[in-house]
Amino acid sequence: MENRFTGWTDVDLSEKGVGEAQEAGRILKKEGFGFDLVFTSVLKRAIRTMEIALEEMGLSGGVQVKKSWRLNERHYGALQGLNKAETAAKYGEEQVKIWRRSYDVQPPALTRDDSRYPGNDPVYRDLVLQGEMSEKDLPLTECLKDTVERFLPYWEMEIASEVRAGKKILIVAHGNSLRALIKYLDDISDDEIVELNIPTGVPLVYELDENLKPLRHYYLGDQKTIEAAEEAVKTQGTKAL
Amino acid sequence: MENRFTGWTDVDLSEKGVGEAQEAGRILKKEGFGFDLVFTSVLKRAIRTMEIALEEMGLSGGVQVKKSWRLNERHYGALQGLNKAETAAKYGEEQVKIWRRSYDVQPPALTRDDSRYPGNDPVYRDLVLQGEMSEKDLPLTECLKDTVERFLPYWEMEIASEVRAGKKILIVAHGNSLRALIKYLDDISDDEIVELNIPTGVPLVYELDENLKPLRHYYLGDQKTIEAAEEAVKTQGTKAL
Repeated sequence: MENRFTGWTDVDLSEKGVGEAQEAGRILKKEGFGFDLVFTSVLKRAIRTMEIALEEMGLSGGVQVKKSWRLNERHYGALQGLNKAETAAKYGEEQVKIWRRSYDVQPPALTRDDSRYPGNDPVYRDLVLQGEMSEKDLPLTECLKDTVERFLPYWEMEIASEVRAGKKILIVAHGNSLRALIKYLDDISDDEIVELNIPTGVPLVYELDENLKPLRHYYLGDQKTIEAAEEAVKTQGTKAL
Repeated sequence: MENRFTGWTDVDLSEKGVGEAQEAGRILKKEGFGFDLVFTSVLKRAIRTMEIALEEMGLSGGVQVKKSWRLNERHYGALQGLNKAETAAKYGEEQVKIWRRSYDVQPPALTRDDSRYPGNDPVYRDLVLQGEMSEKDLPLTECLKDTVERFLPYWEMEIASEVRAGKKILIVAHGNSLRALIKYLDDISDDEIVELNIPTGVPLVYELDENLKPLRHYYLGDQKTIEAAEEAVKTQGTKAL
């Protein structure tokens, strides 16, 4: 990823990502987790992670998988594809800091003739044709608030009902779509959620009560992995300069 | 596969199979095919074929995939896992010929304590728990007639309605579950269907009218591949000794 704003850019899973996905599957299996239904985004790196983890768990045949653009990573608008240095050079360090720290400030929008606009990608054009999304759902840019707002209807309409029906659910998504979920479940403030870092490839378990309120959540893995994961999350309060 | 009765044995896709899946995806893309919905079995070799072909077509994110045990290969009962020579040695050449040529003669059934019985496989136990199949759907053996009879309800209930709704469907399945589909669509007799050989990895296109009757069907690929595929199917009438 070379520290780029990847967003909706459909990059392949990295070698590191393949290893993390295998390890996540192994841990979930070892800890006795099984799943009845899997949700993932329409981005290749999430789909491959899901495929690899299910394969490791011996579940590739046994569970249905639903893909949705609503679980996609945040769309970074005109920043998408740039690395952090290019972005700082173009817009200034201060502005970049504002985009990184703010819940509701969008990066510059794409224009509709930009090749990075999802309306120019056959995958999303097909989803519009199929009625899975509408023209106005195609983002030109997103702040985290936008990501939360397009994720939540999917949680309500598709995922929550399955959880209520007693199904065990695996969600394979991205940093910001998972922030959206955790913000909602744990009722985290706008200011705090932008500081919450969810480590990649470490299974995060949420146990919910009958009202879908979290009873507890915890990471799976060896002690060092878990500590590193918890540390990454704890820094949510300590704003860096 | 070493010429074994694979059936529900969940072997990985072979190297040859990977290449065929890539080639199938490339041809479908080149010929301008797109799909709205994909159906496959719960067997790894079909799921991987589907994943690879969709990836080649650039469709991995854009289409939903539904998996069903009803699209699985025929279950070969006590023959499953044996190769053709072992089977002939155990049951005699004549008996093997009868099993191969007959529509409704089942191979010897497994007992429920056999590790090859799907009821002892976590994948199918989970499907029973999830209500996707019932205990009595777990096969101890199948003749082709049995495969046809468990496939057809899925065609009727899940696939046909999507075709009627105008969706373009890709089905990634197995020799005998595809025989079941073709038998139904083309109204092929019991005697003829057992002689129909469907080549692996060659996209077979069925265009249907509004009553889901076939207008025409054809193979995709280079001329040599198509001719070989058609030859394999034509031999359906010429019973070998």
